[in-house]
Order: sequence, then structure tokens, then C-alpha cells
Amino acid sequence: MSEPQHSLDRLLSPRSIAVVGASDKPGRIGTMVYQNVIRAFGGRVYPVNPRGGILIDRPAMTSIDDLPDGVDMAIVMVPASQVAGTIEQCGAKGIGAVTLLSSGFAEIGADGAAMQASLREVIDRTGVRVVGPNCIGFMNLHAGVMANFALPHTTPLPEPGPVALVSQSGGFGSYITTKSLLTGVKLGWFVSTGNEVDVNLAEVLAHLVEHDEVKVLMVFSETLRDPDVFIGAARRAAELDKPIVLLKAGRSEEAARAAMSHTASIVGSAAVLDAVCRQYGVIVVDTMEEMLDLGLIFQDGRRASGSRIGIMTTSGGAGVLLADCAAAEGLTVPPIPDRERAAIEAMMPQPFYGSIANPIDTTAQLGAAHPGAYQMVLDALLDVDELDLFTTVTWAQPGPSNDAILSSYQATTKPLAVLSTGYLPEFHAAGVPTYLDPRRAVHALNAVARYSLRPALDRPADPGAGTDPAEVRHLLARADGQRLLLESDSKELLARYGAQVTRERTVGNADEAVEAARELGTAVALKAMSYQLPHKSDVGALRLNLRTAAEVREAYDAMLLEVAELAPHAKVESVLVQEMVPARLELTCGLQRDPVFGPVVAVGLGGTTIEIMAVAELLHVPFSHATAVRTIRGLLGGRLVSAARGLDDLEVDQLASLMVAIGRLATELPGVAEIDVNPVRVSAGRVVAADALVVLDPADSVQPVEAR
Amino acid sequence: MSEPQHSLDRLLSPRSIAVVGASDKPGRIGTMVYQNVIRAFGGRVYPVNPRGGILIDRPAMTSIDDLPDGVDMAIVMVPASQVAGTIEQCGAKGIGAVTLLSSGFAEIGADGAAMQASLREVIDRTGVRVVGPNCIGFMNLHAGVMANFALPHTTPLPEPGPVALVSQSGGFGSYITTKSLLTGVKLGWFVSTGNEVDVNLAEVLAHLVEHDEVKVLMVFSETLRDPDVFIGAARRAAELDKPIVLLKAGRSEEAARAAMSHTASIVGSAAVLDAVCRQYGVIVVDTMEEMLDLGLIFQDGRRASGSRIGIMTTSGGAGVLLADCAAAEGLTVPPIPDRERAAIEAMMPQPFYGSIANPIDTTAQLGAAHPGAYQMVLDALLDVDELDLFTTVTWAQPGPSNDAILSSYQATTKPLAVLSTGYLPEFHAAGVPTYLDPRRAVHALNAVARYSLRPALDRPADPGAGTDPAEVRHLLARADGQRLLLESDSKELLARYGAQVTRERTVGNADEAVEAARELGTAVALKAMSYQLPHKSDVGALRLNLRTAAEVREAYDAMLLEVAELAPHAKVESVLVQEMVPARLELTCGLQRDPVFGPVVAVGLGGTTIEIMAVAELLHVPFSHATAVRTIRGLLGGRLVSAARGLDDLEVDQLASLMVAIGRLATELPGVAEIDVNPVRVSAGRVVAADALVVLDPADSVQPVEAR
Repeated sequence: MSEPQHSLDRLLSPRSIAVVGASDKPGRIGTMVYQNVIRAFGGRVYPVNPRGGILIDRPAMTSIDDLPDGVDMAIVMVPASQVAGTIEQCGAKGIGAVTLLSSGFAEIGADGAAMQASLREVIDRTGVRVVGPNCIGFMNLHAGVMANFALPHTTPLPEPGPVALVSQSGGFGSYITTKSLLTGVKLGWFVSTGNEVDVNLAEVLAHLVEHDEVKVLMVFSETLRDPDVFIGAARRAAELDKPIVLLKAGRSEEAARAAMSHTASIVGSAAVLDAVCRQYGVIVVDTMEEMLDLGLIFQDGRRASGSRIGIMTTSGGAGVLLADCAAAEGLTVPPIPDRERAAIEAMMPQPFYGSIANPIDTTAQLGAAHPGAYQMVLDALLDVDELDLFTTVTWAQPGPSNDAILSSYQATTKPLAVLSTGYLPEFHAAGVPTYLDPRRAVHALNAVARYSLRPALDRPADPGAGTDPAEVRHLLARADGQRLLLESDSKELLARYGAQVTRERTVGNADEAVEAARELGTAVALKAMSYQLPHKSDVGALRLNLRTAAEVREAYDAMLLEVAELAPHAKVESVLVQEMVPARLELTCGLQRDPVFGPVVAVGLGGTTIEIMAVAELLHVPFSHATAVRTIRGLLGGRLVSAARGLDDLEVDQLASLMVAIGRLATELPGVAEIDVNPVRVSAGRVVAADALVVLDPADSVQPVEAR
Repeated sequence: MSEPQHSLDRLLSPRSIAVVGASDKPGRIGTMVYQNVIRAFGGRVYPVNPRGGILIDRPAMTSIDDLPDGVDMAIVMVPASQVAGTIEQCGAKGIGAVTLLSSGFAEIGADGAAMQASLREVIDRTGVRVVGPNCIGFMNLHAGVMANFALPHTTPLPEPGPVALVSQSGGFGSYITTKSLLTGVKLGWFVSTGNEVDVNLAEVLAHLVEHDEVKVLMVFSETLRDPDVFIGAARRAAELDKPIVLLKAGRSEEAARAAMSHTASIVGSAAVLDAVCRQYGVIVVDTMEEMLDLGLIFQDGRRASGSRIGIMTTSGGAGVLLADCAAAEGLTVPPIPDRERAAIEAMMPQPFYGSIANPIDTTAQLGAAHPGAYQMVLDALLDVDELDLFTTVTWAQPGPSNDAILSSYQATTKPLAVLSTGYLPEFHAAGVPTYLDPRRAVHALNAVARYSLRPALDRPADPGAGTDPAEVRHLLARADGQRLLLESDSKELLARYGAQVTRERTVGNADEAVEAARELGTAVALKAMSYQLPHKSDVGALRLNLRTAAEVREAYDAMLLEVAELAPHAKVESVLVQEMVPARLELTCGLQRDPVFGPVVAVGLGGTTIEIMAVAELLHVPFSHATAVRTIRGLLGGRLVSAARGLDDLEVDQLASLMVAIGRLATELPGVAEIDVNPVRVSAGRVVAADALVVLDPADSVQPVEAR
């Protein structure tokens, strides 16, 4: 080994490469990969083939032992059964890393999984870093490393570009690579990680985000093995102003089944992944074309200072459709200011049958017949200070109006997307983002606007002098072997962490109930507390709106009678006397623990609505109060705050505090598995937990989460 | 005129054509159109140009007067100011129809609108049918009529295909025509209607749907001038099993503004148009690519017998993504039955590292190296009886696996969509539906499944012996100049049409209120009735849950006192004593009148939820009880009936009856402008209107709707 390097540098930016299993027989993977390597790489390349001889242009080593010491990276393509031995040999020769293209491991079932486990053991012992197995290799065009069979060696070698693609699936990654070339996305990197016996997607992402030449990252993920590294990479990307665009496969149960048989990996909750991505600035897309659409618009590095779009077309219909798309995306299409409007009008040939509003409809008069005017108008539009994003429409035929678009694009620093009937080579070469559909063009522009205007990621302050977990442990202990806390204990626990709950008293008889109601001084509810009755209303364990001592006393007895009759086996521990609180709105707030990302806090519509329609947002713990506020303001596209009777600022603040309280509780009490606060009642500036259920982890209530 | 024809036949399928404004000077529209006509048309063509001489291959007439009598159709391209005179001349020479390409009419403002009005006058007088102005012409490839400048005459003439495109916008229609050629959609017709001074989009649609060679209709619409004709065409298309795919521009306010300046037309509510389309089987799409995607999948005429998709890929990742897309669309991805699975497994080369589940992941082994096996597997998959729709993945390179896909496609009658990195000429030629994105491929297949499984359109029975409008007119008369009915009168009116409303009495003093409550025999609410207080709760005009005579009496006085204090100018007409009805769910039901389509009945979530989140479906009047039931069952993706505490069958039936009642009322009482029933309270098999507001049309309460 010549000098110490970061371990992924020797793998992904090697100065010397061995190709174990290199061949020159047509149609073999060993040949495709070897030819890809030698056509692109400037450093030393050593083919290894037990038969020796000259392979294309240089002699093959017959074994790894014959290699010089300290080769940076070996590409390994031997049968699965020989892989562990080969990596052992690599380690012995000081080879730093292996790109393992062989298949036949965890993806084929139990036998393969056992083989992969023994591979893992060799990796741990030798310290050789391995990407794969069951991957298609990687491409680092900036360093001339084509360690893959993703592109046939007969395909012209692409120019290195600013976009990096990371994909677990080799086949689909190669598909996306091919599509990138067709659509004008300029890749500099493509790394496939396959079964991820060692190096995983998050680690590659964290590595690539630090490379100066990488400006945009596109990720195709089936599973995420290293959530903290992923979040760290997302934070760095946001700091460095490098968008990450993520396409997640395995969202549905059907697909998760397919993904597990494909890469033998556990698939977490797609909703939680979405939430984590939103929280840390990663852009989640729904489909392959959308990923490429965003790669295309982001690769020129332009940013927008607002969400106001200017539209220019030679077809009124296209303009109307583009304006629709803009409105649907939430962009504004403001009128062009009078001065600029007059100036543009003066540029038009007469008689002019189009329209200088926004959209500008130049009609077909302008494009072909007056290319000079076309460019003047487009330049004038791009110059309007009150507009931030731009789109124009053209036909995929070389001609003066396309020359004009090209010049105008190069003369501005504002984002411009072109809608075209097809792709134009000169636009590709110059990097003009070209789209074949109005909605996709506008969606890409909106992605730039949203990314440009994104809020800074927060670093939640240390909870500091919070609740002492030891102090509240007695509350958890009250459960005494049960899997849940009573409503009264659940609310008391929440209150200890700063949540606002209903004022209430726990009582043991009707006299105490009457006295408690008197102390509370409002109409009250009675609720029978029992570990056997988490759903109270079905068995009569609930009485509402009691106003007088007589009503309380009568309801107390009637409730216990009814519970005894409808749920004879339930043991009633106590009765809760709770103030009635009015509600203009009922919300819900809760805690879940995701197998991949750990604790997340949910907030959404509550009450009975939740059974018809679950509307919620999730936040990964920890998060700041400001992030909670932003999340609440984002619910239902902003309608929860903007609607008549929506939340006011004070209520938003209080709801955010409840979320923060639950988040702190989740961090400090790993023994709490779930929390469900439903309803959170909202009325006149008061946001209060009116019912709550804390579910405990049966395994252990004091172990930290990570060890579970 | 030689013989009588349907007027649009002489326009769109002429046997002779005059080209008024024909030219041979390069770059002129007159030249483009003339060359398009003569290169395609087998019948007689007469160029007209005041300068005369030989135009390309035949002598030009110097005026319309020189034409032989009874030419079927004239294409007119003269300046706007000469158009009226030209049409006058056409009429005098017995020309049946004019394709009017000139611009400078309503689209340019008031002057143009005046010119268009005088054009309308000439059309009415002469009986000449006119398509345009401000259109790009039309193309009827089946009859060789290229009366347009949508395609340059240098573009090879497309083969006539089964898809017809109708577009108001000429420019965008021509854009779509060009895209159709690139994506493999086989057009037989393209008609642009422009400003629609005479012939409109709905009429063209109704005409084309009857043509045998037309199998699919694609419509790009900015405004709909003839809703009844449109609905008639949609009905015929459904009967004839011809999908109509509609893209609507001008959905947003921004776009509507642009559309009005573009075609000078009124734009109706996009939500109502969507509802009408859904009701009559028209498929509404969101964007241009989606329209072409559906045109492409529908043009082979294949239908599906279910929604079960079979997926085959050479890339596991692509399979997972396709399965995700299928699940998101609501398709099922069932496992392949054991017998077929074993048979397919036996076809695979060994060792086999893929997976024979659904998706089938053949891995890259199969595609290139074993094309014979590839086709066997694909054929075997297509043969599985338990699967209805299919997709497979390929690369846009000629090769044996693409030959296999082509053969398999031709050997089956089931719908198959191919996901490819790019378009393949041999697939285009054979009509294999090819998509560049997984989501789009699966969405197209789902469109086929949904269209294939669509319910038959109902013909609502005649309301028959319903409520006599004269009988209820006194109820409307009670409003006595007010714009609305009191809640009590509103509910009485609804009840007359068969709606279930709360049991209630109108009273004038506290004694009567107590007596009414006694008669009702339940807890009651009191509501102050006043034309000035449509929103009762804000001013204390509402008292709930009164159980005893004392409570009723006390509440009566307190309510009137509070109203007098908070709304001193309100005149209280009476007090409504209403039974309290329990509610598991609160819904809403109402009537709106759309400026284009007339009365529509809405049903959706009610109560306070509606202010945060409007979820509703609309039905165009008239509709049957069965259609109302289907609409309710479709609300919230079916969750309103499938959720815990969702509607049961009896409740769905009652809610449908309420909708039908409101629909009947809307038909019989055109003086009712709006109805808002909110909430409709649902509990234990009872669906009842608990509050209702009828708004009257101030103009006239007896005039029919059309005359308003």
C-alpha cells in the first residue's frame, strides 16, 4: 500500500486496478468489464485469468499472487463459491478494495445467504472494503474508472458530468444510466451497491457528497441499512447546496415482497422514509422519469429567488396548459409589469394576433418568420425582475428559434426549462433542460424553486435540564407487567414532559367524584380506568357533560353497573374525573418507532375523521419546535391553518410544544413503544390532550432503543 | 350541390376542395396548405388566387365566381376583413362548407369580436358550415384530406390510424399530432376548431364517434360550448366501446385568464367537467403525455377482463418499481399459480439467480443469451388465466429479445405494455404500446382495465308522478322577496321531494315550544328562524340537547334575549323546535348550477371537516339512484363505506335517495339556485338532513334554467 487513503477512495477512485476473471471472449461479462476498464482508465490495469496469455493488449496474471503488492482495487467476477477465497487472497496482497460483480449470494435464498455470511467474516478479518455482491459495478468518469458492465464498451464513453447516481439495483441503475444519456442528464458517477455485504448506499452517498465535482445526487433505493449515515449525508448535501433526489422502490406490500426476494433486504415504512427525507431536505420522487427530470434541471446549478413563473409560447393552447400546470404546482403566474409589457409589445410584428400577458402567446408568426424578434422577446421576458422561473415551447427541429432559445439560455442565470416535441442534440450539448411534457417541465422548475427556498435544517437544541427519567420511572412501573398505561397515568406522564392535558382527578368512589368535580369547577366527564378497557365507549365506561353533583353521583353508579354488565371480566382500577373541554377541532398526535429510523412523532386530524381518512405528517426525533411549527403549517397543504376555524398562531405553537414533548419523551424513555393522543382538543387558543394511551415495549423498559 | 349530405360530411369528408388563398411562394401558409391538399387528396382541387396563373401543377381560378358550382369545401386563408365577403361568395356558389384558417377575430379583442359577429350573421344567412376561424385546419387521412398547416408538407404523410384528435387550439393540436407520430399513436383524424364561430368541438366529436374507422378519441378542450351534444357524444362513444380521452386546459384561474384571451371563450368549472366526464365514461387526463399514453394503449382495441397484472423484467429493481406503480394504481399483482410457475421455472437456464414470483425477474441472463427461453417465458406468462394485464421491460436496441416481445404481443389478445429505454421503430410499426417510464406504462394498463370494467351508463327513469311543482310553489313564495328560504321552509321543501329531514315544529312562543318538545318526545334543539341569520351559532340563535320542559322554556327565553343583543337588527320570524339526532358521521349534500352544464348534486364529508378539507363528488342531473349509490361508494377511494364506522348499505341507500330528491327538485324548480344540506347526520341506519339552506335565483323563480 503506497499511502493511507480513505477506504472508499481506494475503491471508487483507484490508481491501479486488477480485473479478476478478465476475458477476451465475446459476450462474456469478463470481457465487457475488462474492455470497459482498459478503454477508460489512465492508471495501471492488471488482468487476472488462470489461463494466462495476452488479453487484448497486455499479459494476464495467472493468479492474484502474481500481482504487485498494494493494487488499490480488484474487480472480482469469479463464481460465488470461489469469492471468499479470492477476497482472502486480495487481502494478503494488500489490495484495498473489491468491486464484487458475482451473483449467487443472499438474493438466491438460504444457501446464498450462508455464503454471504462467510464472506462478511472474511471482510471483517482482512479489512478489504467490498462493494456488492450481485451488483453491476460502478463508473467514475472523472477518474476514468469503468468498473462495470452497465454500459456496453461499444457505447461512446460519456463526458464526465455533475450528476452522481447511486442504486442498489444494478440492472435498473444501468437502465437509468442509459436513459440519462438519452435525456441529457450528465452523469459523472454511477455506483451500484447490490447486496451490500459491506459498503452500502448511505455510505456511498456520504462519500460522494463531499466530492467537488458532484453537484446533484440521484438515488434509487430499495432498502436503507444505515439511517444515521443517510441523515448525515443529507445534512451535508443541504449545507453544500447539492440536491439529493431519491426514488424508493418497495413502497407497496407487493413491491416489498419482490424487493425482499430480489436483494434479500428488509424494507422499512415508505411513509417514514418520505418524512425523514422531507425533514432533511432530500427530494423524494415517484418515478424514474421524475428523477431524471429533476437531475436535468438541477445539473446547471441555477437557483430561483421565488416561485413566479414566466411562460412564452407560440401556441395559445400550450400556454394555457402550462399555466394550469404552474397553478397546480403552487407556482404563481403574475402579469408582466406594464413597462416590460409595452416594450415586448413593441417588438412584435404587425398585425399581431397573439397576447402579451403571462403566458406570452407570440403565435406561430414569431417563431419561424422573425427569429430575431423571438430572441428579443425571450430575453426581455427573462430580464423581468418580478419573475423567477421560465419556460418556453419549441419544436424539435433545428432552426433559428431554437438558436435563439440556446442563446437566451446561455445569457441568463435564471432557471429555464424548454418544452419540446423531442430532444435536440444542440440543447443536450449546451445543457438546456428539455422536457417533452408541460407538466414535467413545470414540475422540474417548481423543484428548483422549492429547493432554492428551502428552510435551513435545524439542529435541535439539547433538551438540557429536562425531566429526569428516573423521576418518571415510577409512572412506568405502575403498569406492573401490563403492556400499557392507564389513561390517567398516560396523561400524567405526558404532563411531566410538558404536554398540556385536561385537568382531572383519579377517584375511588362517588363521594370523591363529586368532590373532584366541585374542585374542577366545570362540567366533567367520568371515565372508568381499566387495563382491560382501552376502548371505553363500547362498554359504557364513559359519561360526558355532567354538570351537577347529582348528575355526577348518578352517572358514577350507572357507569360502574354498565361496565360490570358489558365487560364482566374487566377490573376497574379507578375512575377518572375530567374537565369537559370544548373543541372547535379534534386533532391527533402520537409516537411510532420505525424499524429503520427509530422514533417518529405523528400529527394529524383526529376524532372520528381519522377512521375515514388518515391525514398526518411525521417528524423524525429529535426535531426543534420551529420544525414542528413548519410541519403543522404544512398539513393538508396549509389548510389546517388557513381554513376558516383553522388553527391560530397560539394554537399552532401549543400543538408544536405537544409534539416536542412527545419527542423528548421518546428519546429519554426507550421503553415507551407507542403513544396515541386522540383527540387533542382545540378551542379558543387552548390545545389539550383529552385522551392518551401509552404502550410499553414488553421486552425491556430501560434498555436504549438501539439495543432492542 | 350534387346530392344532400350531412353538413359535416361535406366539411370533413369533401369530394372536392377549393383552396382560397393558395400560393406557391415558399414559407407562406397558403403554400403549405395548398401543397398539403394536393399531395394527399384524390378528388378535385381548385386553387383560387386573384393573380391566376399556374400554381405548382394546375391553373388557379382568379375568383370564387370562377369555380364550378357545388364544390363541397373551401379552405379560406384571406385577411380577416375579407372573410365575411368570401363566405358570402362561397354560399352563392353552393359551396357547402368552409375551413377558415384566417386569424384576427374574437381572439384579438373587441374589434375582432365584432368582425366575428358579422361572420356569424353571414353563416346564418347562407347556411355554409364553417370550422374556425383562428384554427389550423383539419386532417382526415382516411379520405386523404390535409386541409391544414399542422404538419409541413415535407413530413411523410402518416398512414391512417384508428385515433381521432379534436382540439380547439390549432397550435397545440399540431404539437400533439407531431408527438403522436414520435410516440407511435396512429392518428386517422385531427380537427382543430379554433374560435368556433359555427362548428364546435362537441359537434365534431359527435360526428367522428359515428365513423367506423375511429376507435379512440383524444380531445384537447379549452371551453365546451354545447354540453348536451358533448354528453350525447359521450353516451354514443360508451355504447360503441370507443374511449374518449379528454385533456382540459384552463383549470386554474391563471389558465382560465389565458384561455379567455386566447380563444375569447368562457371557461366553466373544471370540477364539474371532471364529474360530468366520469359520469358519462369520458377519461379525463392531467397532461399531454398522459393523453398520448392512453391513445397508445387503446388503439389496438384490446380489453381486459380484470385488474390483475403480470410483470416480467430482466432487472429486479425495475420489477419492484413496476409492482409499486401497480399497487399505487389499485391493480393487484397476484402470485403466479404453482403449475405455471413450475413450468416457467423449468424454462430457465441454470444456475438461475432470478425469481419466478410476480414480478418474474429473469435477470439479464435471459434477455441476450437465451432469446428462445425469453419468448417461451413471456408467452407462458401471457397465457396465465388469472392475469389480465401485462408489462415487460426492454432496451431500445434491436435484438432477439425485442423480436420475442414483438411475436408474443402479436400472439396474444391481452393488453401488453412495454417499458423501454427508448422508442423502437419495429414496435411502432406493429403497434406495440411502448412507454419510457414504469408509472406511465402501468397507468395506461390500468386505464384499459378501468375502461373495460366500466359500469353501463344509466338512463335515469322519468321522475314520473312526482311532486307537483305548483303544489310546492307556495313554499318558495314564503321567501317573499328574500334570496333564501328559512331553515324550516328549506327542510319542508326537501321533504316534499322525498328527503328525510329531522322531525320538527315551528313555534311562536315558549309554551308552544314546550308543547312541541313534548310531542316530539326526545331531546330537542331550538333554532331562531330569521332571514338575517343564516349562520345561527355565531349569534346564539341555537340551543342544543334540551331534555325537560324547564330546560326548553329557559332556553327559549335566553336564546331570544341573546339574539336581540348580538344581532339587534335581525327579525326573528319563528322558532324551530327540532328533535336531536345522534351522528356517527356528518356528511353534506347540495345543489349547484354550473354555467356550462347546469344542475349538479354534490355529496361529501360535512360538519366542521368541510372547512378544513372539502371532499366531495358531483353528479350531473338527472341521474339514477344506482349512479348515486356508485358515487357514494367511490367517495374517498371507497373509505366512506369500507372504514370502521363507515356507511352501511342501508345508509348508502338513504343518502342516495337524498341525492335523487335534490336532483328532482333541481329539475322541477329552476328557481332554486343552490341548496346546502349540512350536516346530513348519519347514525344507526338513519340518514337525516339536520340543517338545510335553499337559495333562490333572484332573477326569476319560475323561468326554466336555460333562459337565465
